[in-house]
Amino acid sequence: MINNIESLWSEKVNSMKKSVIRELLKLTQKEGIISFAGGLPDPALFPVDDLSKCTEYVLQTHGSKALQYGLTEGDLGLRKELATRYRQIEGLNIDENNIVITTASQQGLDLVGRVFLDKGDVVMCALPSYLGGINAFSSYGAEIKGVKLDENGMSATALDDEINKTKAEGKKVKFIYLVPDFQNPAGITMNRQRRLDILDIAYKHNLPIIEDSPYREVRFDGEPQEMFQSLDKKGFVITLGSLSKVLAPGFRIGWAMGDPIFLDKIVTVKQVADLCSSSFVQMIAAEYFRQGYYAENIKKIIKAYREKRDAMLGALEEFMPEGVTWTHPEGGLFLFVILPKNMNSEALFEKAIERNVAFVIGNVFHCDNSGKNTMRINFSFSSIEDNIEGVRRLSEVIKEMM
Amino acid sequence: MINNIESLWSEKVNSMKKSVIRELLKLTQKEGIISFAGGLPDPALFPVDDLSKCTEYVLQTHGSKALQYGLTEGDLGLRKELATRYRQIEGLNIDENNIVITTASQQGLDLVGRVFLDKGDVVMCALPSYLGGINAFSSYGAEIKGVKLDENGMSATALDDEINKTKAEGKKVKFIYLVPDFQNPAGITMNRQRRLDILDIAYKHNLPIIEDSPYREVRFDGEPQEMFQSLDKKGFVITLGSLSKVLAPGFRIGWAMGDPIFLDKIVTVKQVADLCSSSFVQMIAAEYFRQGYYAENIKKIIKAYREKRDAMLGALEEFMPEGVTWTHPEGGLFLFVILPKNMNSEALFEKAIERNVAFVIGNVFHCDNSGKNTMRINFSFSSIEDNIEGVRRLSEVIKEMM
Repeated sequence: MINNIESLWSEKVNSMKKSVIRELLKLTQKEGIISFAGGLPDPALFPVDDLSKCTEYVLQTHGSKALQYGLTEGDLGLRKELATRYRQIEGLNIDENNIVITTASQQGLDLVGRVFLDKGDVVMCALPSYLGGINAFSSYGAEIKGVKLDENGMSATALDDEINKTKAEGKKVKFIYLVPDFQNPAGITMNRQRRLDILDIAYKHNLPIIEDSPYREVRFDGEPQEMFQSLDKKGFVITLGSLSKVLAPGFRIGWAMGDPIFLDKIVTVKQVADLCSSSFVQMIAAEYFRQGYYAENIKKIIKAYREKRDAMLGALEEFMPEGVTWTHPEGGLFLFVILPKNMNSEALFEKAIERNVAFVIGNVFHCDNSGKNTMRINFSFSSIEDNIEGVRRLSEVIKEMM
Repeated sequence: MINNIESLWSEKVNSMKKSVIRELLKLTQKEGIISFAGGLPDPALFPVDDLSKCTEYVLQTHGSKALQYGLTEGDLGLRKELATRYRQIEGLNIDENNIVITTASQQGLDLVGRVFLDKGDVVMCALPSYLGGINAFSSYGAEIKGVKLDENGMSATALDDEINKTKAEGKKVKFIYLVPDFQNPAGITMNRQRRLDILDIAYKHNLPIIEDSPYREVRFDGEPQEMFQSLDKKGFVITLGSLSKVLAPGFRIGWAMGDPIFLDKIVTVKQVADLCSSSFVQMIAAEYFRQGYYAENIKKIIKAYREKRDAMLGALEEFMPEGVTWTHPEGGLFLFVILPKNMNSEALFEKAIERNVAFVIGNVFHCDNSGKNTMRINFSFSSIEDNIEGVRRLSEVIKEMM
């Protein structure tokens, strides 16, 4: 063996831990467990036959292109389809030059980190915030500052205060990271006024906004709030999108969308990171849009996840003891449960696993190590019956611990 | 627009340039050009029908798994197939726990950089060396030191001298980067004795070896030289492999192979980089191996590229003026051409493009900015006729410039 291997690792990797969620997911793969832990879509909704048709068409008519190296920016056909969808659904004034394809939105987060962050730089995130974002940004040595949320999303005044405080400390804020719709993990959607207020703060401090938007189309009820990408008229917003929740995570297709001045840098770092994404899966996805399958399938997904959310909300209402509260998300894949202040969800997790039910401890989403009495619960993956049964089991464990 | 955007970019990205090769590739996409520039496989050899069968099988029998999130380590089935192949062909004593799947070998290079390199660290490379490796390592702020090649590969004594010199300067060497077989760009294969000598130097200085091995199976003639991964009995070697040259670049499948102590760190950074690679393409590739298609197809690839190499060597012999020399690679995809010392291949490139023939200037593969009179020529992508005609055109331009 190599001697003293630790001395050869980079400073970055020495400070990194394996993702708690990914490691939890392994634990929860045991037989018979009801897992609310991952952010996994329901595989019963994967459009296997339509994808099979699209694949056959792509291989037989464009095999040489699909199996060859592609542009770092991504397949032109897919970028056009995505741009068309955003123009139609969101009214965005964009085209394929505003989109770069990434290996799902996790690579989008990582490349954004690589483009902006040096050691000691500061990122403004919500408290709590998506762990994949926090981990990607931290891996570049950035400091993550958490801004509290209220029922309308990240507090604009708290954000402004935190930025001012950080500047006063002589530190450099590089961007604001947000999940405006059905926030992961808190399930909150930012209202329009809050979005405008946050944008104003971004303009005032000259800071880009990273709008992480993987679930936006998965809305069950309520009114869609205009995207940051749409409200912003000055080119401050980079939106990250993904097909993982609305088509198939196994395709690993995401994108970064915004002003070409940002995308040009993202392309530069993507060249180093992996040269290009798979033309094969991109062209299949493009064909899937072209055939109108996407527009049809998203309706099925919304209907199915709405029923699952409702079943889970009903079960929480029925089984949970007093003192436990939870969010009522208008879309997305997650509920956030708040236990009484003195309870620790990590202790709860261990007992829950014994009862064959799993979730993610909320603490990991809090960059300030708070939120020990919270838990993230996914409702998209398990069946309705398991959603109800899992909540029942959880409620029993919680009652025992109270 | 954001004011003074340059002040927001990371130090890393400010120092990065877009890959010369990727940008050249765009230039060479003009109609009618004969391009020897990329490292592209011949699309006529893509096994479209066999892949189509494998895809249909995977979707219809394992659709739920193929379209879902997968393990960060990569699909177990594919890792087993790759391990089996290495055991059978190379006699390696490995299994699936020695393999992590990456987005082709470029991500392997990038993740290796991320695991080992901090700003100011030093990487030992050959002079010349693969640009994708140099760029990935440089992007972490590492200094690349070039060690001269002779006809048997990187000089072992020059390597030892360079490591000693670097240590004397108070700098930290982190690893030795090598392409032992049909080196890109120089086409040289390292002989067994040289491999043993380099291994001894790695042991002496306690340095990992990165064995970049994307073409190893593409051998036309001569005797295979035992892999570093096989010669090394102490766990110092990380081998990077890829299906890009032996199946399809469009699948973006590569791997890192070695001791789990390294792979564990690679998995940690891959979680942050993109969570996991596409289960869909990995499972198709696994099925492609399982059905025996891979073993059959590689024979076709070797036969076809041997004919193309021979045609190009013949044309060089026939058309090139005196004073021009070139390598005679026993495998791989590239020839390296050395022009008379006073000639500059960048000036040649501009004139060649006017004559509708393209290559990569050899200078970009030299971390010390030397090699201005060299050029890398790919023989796998163009037809035999174009290989001959392209060399004829190049020889004309060279004669005019002499």
